[in-house]
Parts: sequence; structure tokens; C-alpha cells
Amino acid sequence: MLFEFDYDKYNYEYSECDKSELMKEFGLLQRKIKELGIPVLIMLEGWECSGKGYVINDLVREVNHKYTKVHVFSEMTEEEREKPFLWRFWNCIPAKGEIAVFDRSFYYDLMDDLNLTKKKTAKYIEDIESIEKQLRDDDTVIIKIFLNISEQTQKNRIQEYETHKYKKILVNERDYRQNRSYDEYLKHFNQVLKDTDFKGSRWNIIPSESMKKASLEVLGNCIDILKKSILKHLEFGSVVDKEELLFPESKKIIEELDYDLSLSHKEYKKIKKDLEPKLNSLGYEFFVKKVPSILIFEGVDAAGKGGAIKRLTKCFDPRGYEVVPISAPSDVENSYHYMWRFWKEIPPNGKMTIFDRSWYGRVLVERIEGFATEEQWKRAYNEINEIEKHLRKSGVLILKFFIAIDNDEQLRRFNDRMLNPDKNYKLTEEDWRNREKWDSYLSAYDDMIERTSTEYAPWIVIPGNDKYYARIRVLEEVLKRGLKFIEDER
Amino acid sequence: MLFEFDYDKYNYEYSECDKSELMKEFGLLQRKIKELGIPVLIMLEGWECSGKGYVINDLVREVNHKYTKVHVFSEMTEEEREKPFLWRFWNCIPAKGEIAVFDRSFYYDLMDDLNLTKKKTAKYIEDIESIEKQLRDDDTVIIKIFLNISEQTQKNRIQEYETHKYKKILVNERDYRQNRSYDEYLKHFNQVLKDTDFKGSRWNIIPSESMKKASLEVLGNCIDILKKSILKHLEFGSVVDKEELLFPESKKIIEELDYDLSLSHKEYKKIKKDLEPKLNSLGYEFFVKKVPSILIFEGVDAAGKGGAIKRLTKCFDPRGYEVVPISAPSDVENSYHYMWRFWKEIPPNGKMTIFDRSWYGRVLVERIEGFATEEQWKRAYNEINEIEKHLRKSGVLILKFFIAIDNDEQLRRFNDRMLNPDKNYKLTEEDWRNREKWDSYLSAYDDMIERTSTEYAPWIVIPGNDKYYARIRVLEEVLKRGLKFIEDER
Repeated sequence: MLFEFDYDKYNYEYSECDKSELMKEFGLLQRKIKELGIPVLIMLEGWECSGKGYVINDLVREVNHKYTKVHVFSEMTEEEREKPFLWRFWNCIPAKGEIAVFDRSFYYDLMDDLNLTKKKTAKYIEDIESIEKQLRDDDTVIIKIFLNISEQTQKNRIQEYETHKYKKILVNERDYRQNRSYDEYLKHFNQVLKDTDFKGSRWNIIPSESMKKASLEVLGNCIDILKKSILKHLEFGSVVDKEELLFPESKKIIEELDYDLSLSHKEYKKIKKDLEPKLNSLGYEFFVKKVPSILIFEGVDAAGKGGAIKRLTKCFDPRGYEVVPISAPSDVENSYHYMWRFWKEIPPNGKMTIFDRSWYGRVLVERIEGFATEEQWKRAYNEINEIEKHLRKSGVLILKFFIAIDNDEQLRRFNDRMLNPDKNYKLTEEDWRNREKWDSYLSAYDDMIERTSTEYAPWIVIPGNDKYYARIRVLEEVLKRGLKFIEDER
Repeated sequence: MLFEFDYDKYNYEYSECDKSELMKEFGLLQRKIKELGIPVLIMLEGWECSGKGYVINDLVREVNHKYTKVHVFSEMTEEEREKPFLWRFWNCIPAKGEIAVFDRSFYYDLMDDLNLTKKKTAKYIEDIESIEKQLRDDDTVIIKIFLNISEQTQKNRIQEYETHKYKKILVNERDYRQNRSYDEYLKHFNQVLKDTDFKGSRWNIIPSESMKKASLEVLGNCIDILKKSILKHLEFGSVVDKEELLFPESKKIIEELDYDLSLSHKEYKKIKKDLEPKLNSLGYEFFVKKVPSILIFEGVDAAGKGGAIKRLTKCFDPRGYEVVPISAPSDVENSYHYMWRFWKEIPPNGKMTIFDRSWYGRVLVERIEGFATEEQWKRAYNEINEIEKHLRKSGVLILKFFIAIDNDEQLRRFNDRMLNPDKNYKLTEEDWRNREKWDSYLSAYDDMIERTSTEYAPWIVIPGNDKYYARIRVLEEVLKRGLKFIEDER
């Protein structure tokens, strides 16, 4: 049993401590965390009126505000309702060395709604387990606090607040509802806490009959967990449990494509002219039916990603899509989990985001250049699958295009770019360096395609030696799969 | 007369040009812009159904999407309604070397509302003139396009769209309203265009009876303006007209404060105990009355800003305020107008943002270290006044605290920090270097206080040699001015 109904039995460990000493110690630990670059996520859940505000106030008193942020989550805003459930939380994750305090969190809906179906509950738990694991694997220390109070205490506090000159505005329907159905909520919370008491991010359930005592316990628990995490970090370099990652060789896919597939200019023109108005309609249909979509383009340098994107976007209303070209992350982006910068680009309903390169950089350039450790990129296949699954389940259409050219064709195009002053700017030293790693990239591509082609987000691999053929294939696939998606979603 | 009602008289300059050539040329100019680091803002206004989408599509076809972003503005969202009018536009300004295309812009409300009072209209125009001037002064090229169509053309397009399978969703009440009251809108637009045809950011009015022709004209005009701006930039280094900036010496304020003002520990404790619950109430009152507030703290190193902020925030619910410590801008922040990073922190209704250092860095550290040119920091006093005026007019309470200590006191505190291991981390090499520039900072402070103490956002200058005195003064001033603000706003 997670809940200690018997408050007498709760062992107050820090009730004798001096609060300002604890606050100072927490402040000191923050400096250590900053030094070591450990992200810390503290989540405060609990009954309404259980004193979350009071506790947070003490928690952040002696910290450096530069590296600490309190995020309050309540009902979703218009904008948030248009995005996948985890979106608003991913946007607020702590950077390396920073502390994020969540007042309510991704447990909000799960805790708040007594009438969730089994299926929905399972989905929430799956999503939450996945984000917590991903953050832990990225060395984030997660501290989950649940403040517990009795029915009577809650009642007393509601009464106290509703007669208070200002605090009365803080009392809302949810408070009354919870107090009226206290027993049901108790059972519900108990179940949720049990189901989400994950190894590595366990719940700390703290009685909050006295907010002062609760605050001491929270401070003490946070200090305790941070100390342990820092020691573990110093000892092992990384807080993550090293898992054995099986990695059998992938089938050769890229090399065995038929690079002779081609279209004449005349055929190209004709098919394009036929497809363009249909794609234009599809764009409006996405808008009307509020379908958000993500199109990902990957491929070697000079494969023709940009050209294909240009022919595609030409069909759409420019207010309906955004092209997001991805290159090396900025310093700020680098201080976060690698997925953070992509979450910001997730489209709202009816809009399309086209990624020219994408989060697959983790298993491509970051793998090959060693920017990600072997453990990190090996783990990333599954992480990406989980996130794409979450997006797909939230109603996002995901189309992933891999445009492939063979080695000779790349050389031809590089030479062409080198000699043509109009195209010269497209060719960099780095392109030549990447070319030397052709074989490494080839196996990275094969691994990526094999490991992240899922039912909900399959790779569409297109041989692109002939640009006309590749561009038409992209147009065709977007149209075909777009229409099918709308059909299926109906 | 701005409008050419007689379409026959409009001189199509680019109608003979090849569109794809123009698009390519625009793409080439973008690379030049990127190279020179010039920000470009293209705003598209015009009648409903005048073809803004069509024109934008052509405009962005051949550009590098990495450095171009289309922003669509329509009715404000929940979040946007909680912020000052200019907030959503400042957030989308182009970085150096980038192009931002605004589909509708800060002219939206001004153009759309026929029934604006004279006062409101004047306020809009004042705000718009100020943002355009500030951006131009920061070397931004502003291109303003108005697409003009006749009543009949608009009627035809509405009819065409409303029978179109998908486009019908794009037709809304505004279109019908505009067409019904075409003449009134014509008069209104004419007036708005006249009133906002500012030197340096003039309107380009382009007939859009044929979208294709309009698109050629827009491309041609943009190319033309960009070319001129690039030449000007290459010749003068900066697009800005150099203004003579009068700069008489300021009165000595900081040096002449009474640094002997002090409180005993006993008095301090007693007054604090009295003020804390009152400030706590004030915090809730701000929340209830939806008052957004900005508190700025400036002062030399070790003046006690952090300590004063800590004593103040202790009084408030941590969910109601955010402390934003300001240090050197990141690379990304540096690529924007210096105000950009602060706009992101503007609080929504009922919330408080506490800046530990602020936009005044422009006239302090940036002035003294030479990060801003003389012209830039001299211009900044007025820019800051304009922005604070805008904030105040939008209902934001602004309190600016300057905590001063004298030279001896700073040395005492530095030594204390140096010798006390607990405080050691607070003292850096930079603090010592800044100390050497004491006199320069002193006159920068005096200039700042003299030039930016306005009726709507005065400086509150507090001698802080005695920490107790300074902290109490901050608490008292926040309480007094907070209550007065609520009283006045009623």
C-alpha cells in the first residue's frame, strides 16, 4: 500500500531540522548540480489545498533563480489543446544544471479525472512512463512528491480560504468536487500512484496536515535524493543504469535500391500538373479537418531534399505549412534533451511542419561524429519510436522520406555545384568530409530505416538519382498517404 | 492621395519580367542579406481576398527556409490577449540576416476596426510608429505592401471561394462585412495608409486585380528595396540616418544620496513582520484584479539586489511571480534587437516578473564595455521610454529600483565575499574589473536615472549601505505604489 492512512505512523525525518538550514543546503546542492550539469525535475502533485504553493515557496527561497524555474500547469489553453498531450511538458523540461519545479504536471489529467476509460488511463501511463524514462536516461533527476491530506483537513482549508479576502479566488469547483468525493479520489490516487511508481522515479508521499512539517519533509527528501544522485553521478559519470543493447546487423536497403528508375521531362511535367491541384486540395482538407502533419526529409548531401520540398510546398497555401531546416543545435539547444528543440516545432491542428533533416540526426550525424555516445544513439531508436507513436496517437500524420542517391551520383552533383557559380554556395567543406564517411552513413541509414520503420510512421525510401522520379514519388506518396489518413481517421 | 483608384494609371514595372527569374533574384539577395546580417521585415496588408497567400507563396519559393519565416496574424489567442498589443509582433521580428514575412501585422486591428475612437487610433499609430522606428534604427529593412482590389473583384473572389470545395472554409464574416461596407473601408484604409506612411517605411500600394501581376510587382518591389538597402548598408555601414543626439550632463544623483540611513535589526524585524502579510494580500489582489507587473532591480555589484528580491518574493505566492536574472545575451539573443529577449518575459495578467538587471543593460554595461555604439546607447533612453510607456498604457505596473552603495561599502562587501567560503561563489573576476570602472558606471547611472525617470515608470533610488534599510524601503515602496496603482486603475 502506497498511502499511509495512518498519519501517526509516518516517520517525520526532518521535523527537527532548522528550515533555513535546509533551504541553504538545498541552495548549495543547486550549485553542485549546476557544476555537474545535472537536470533536475521536481514534480509536486497532491490533493487540492494540500499546500503545494507553500512548499514550493520554501523550496525556491534560497536557490539561484537563474537556474530554477517554477512551472504551473492547470487546464490547457487553446494553444495547448491543439498539441499532443506531452507537448507543454517537454517545452518546460530543465536544461543541464537547472531545476524545474512543476506545480502539477503530466499527472494532471490522470489524477483529476475519475471517469477515464481503461484505455485512456493506459495511454496516459504509457506516455508518462516513456517521458520519465527518456528524461532519466538523459541523466535527469526526477523527484515526484505527492502531498497527502485527510478529508477533514481539506474541508477546513477550503473553508479557511473561502472566507479569506483574497484567497477565496483560489477556491474553485475542483476543490469542492474533490472534497465531496474524497473517498473515490483517495482510491483513484492510490491506484495512480501505484501504477506510476516507476523504478528510478518513485513517489514520495508526504502528509501535509501541517504545511510547515510537509515543507521540511519535502526539502529534506529533495536534499537526500539530490545528494544520492550527485554521488552516483560522480561515481559512474552518468546516473543511467547501463542496459545491454542488442544490435544485430541490419539488412542492406539503401545500396540495393533501383537507381535507374527515371521519368522523362515530359512525363514529369505531365504528372506534376496532374498532382498539383490535388495536393492543393489535400492541403485545404487537412486544414478543414484539422489534421496536423509532420513531413520528415532525410538523405545524403545533394540527394535533392530541398528540391523535392520546394516542388511540394508550391502546391500548398504558405500559411498552412512551415519548413524547418535542421542543422547543428545552438548552445542553448544543446543544454537540453536532444528532442527538446523539435517539440517546439510540433504543428497545431491543420498545420504542416516539414523537417529538412530532423531528430534522426541523433542516429546519423551524432552517431557518426561521436556527438552522441554509443549508448545514447542506440537508445535513440526506441525513444524516437515512442515519441512518434505518441504523436501519431495524438492525431498527427507522420510521413518520413528518405531520398537516396548512389556514390557516383553524389560526386557528379558535387562537381556540378563546385563548377556552377549559382549553386556554389550549396557546397561546403563539410559536405566533402561527410562524403568520405559514405560507408558509415550507409549503415547508419540502414539501421535507422530498419529500426524506426513502424506501422504508425514508416519510412518511404526513394531512389533519387533521377530528380524527376524522386520529386514525383514524393508528391504521389504525400497525396496517397494523406488521403488514406483522412479516410482512416473518419 | 495614396490610393490609385484609377487602375489604368498604375505603372506596372515588372509585368514583363519572368517570374522564376525574379524569384531566383530574390533568393540571391537573401544570401547577400544573410552575409551582411541585415534583418528584413516584409508586411503584407490589403483587402480580404486580395491574394496575400498567393503573393507570399511566390515570395518564399526560392528562399532558404532556414532564414525565412512566414507569420500569420489574425484574431488574438487567449494568451495574446493577456499581453500588450505589440507583444506578439516583437516575438516574431527577424534576426540579423533573416527575413520575416508578416501576413497581416500590427496594422491588423487598426485596419480592421471601422469604429475605433480617435484616441485609440492615435495610440495604435503611436505604437506602430515607435516599433517601426526602433526596428529601422536597428538596421531592419521594413517593406510594407498593401494589396488593393476593387469592390467587384472582391465580390467575385468571395463568390469563387464560397463555392470551392475547400476554400469555402477560408471565407468568413469579415470578408462579407468588408465587401458590404467597401466604401467605408476604402476611406478608412486610405486614412490609415496616409497616417502610417512613415519616412523610412513607406507603403507600397499594389493593385491585385490579377494576382499574377500583383505577385510580380511585389517581387520586383522587394528586390528593388533590398538592393537599395544593401547598397546603402555597404556604403554607410548602417542604414540608419545619423541623428544629432544632444547629450547634456546629468545631475549627480547617486553620489549625493544619504548613505547613513539605517535601521536597527530590531526595527527591521518589526517593520518586516508588519509589511509581509500586507504584501501577501497585495500579491493576491494583483491576481484577482488581473494586474500584470514588472519590477526592475538595478545597482552595482554587491548592492544587495538579490537579497532585497528574496525578502520581497518571500511575501508572494511562488506561482504568481517569476524572477528573471539577466546576464550577457546568448548568441541567438544577440542576433536580434536588444529588446527581443525581454519581450518574451512580459508577464500575463495578474503575474509579476522581477528582473534582476534588465534592458537597462543597454545604457549601462553595453555602454561602458562598448558592446553598443555611442549612437545606439544614446538612442536607447528614448526607445526604453517608449516601450515602458506602451507597457504602462497596456495596464502593466512598472516599478524600477536602483539600489546604491558607496565605493567603500562595495569594497567591504567584496572582501567579505572573498573571505567567506559560503559567499565566495558570488564574487568573480568580472566584479573586480567592473569596480575599476566605478566612475564611468556612476555617470551612466546618473544619465539613466535622469533620462528614464518618467511619470509612468519613475526610478526609485535607494541608498543601500545598510541592508535592512534598503530591504524595508523596497517592501514599503512596492506596497505603497502597488496599492496606489490599484486605486488609480479603478
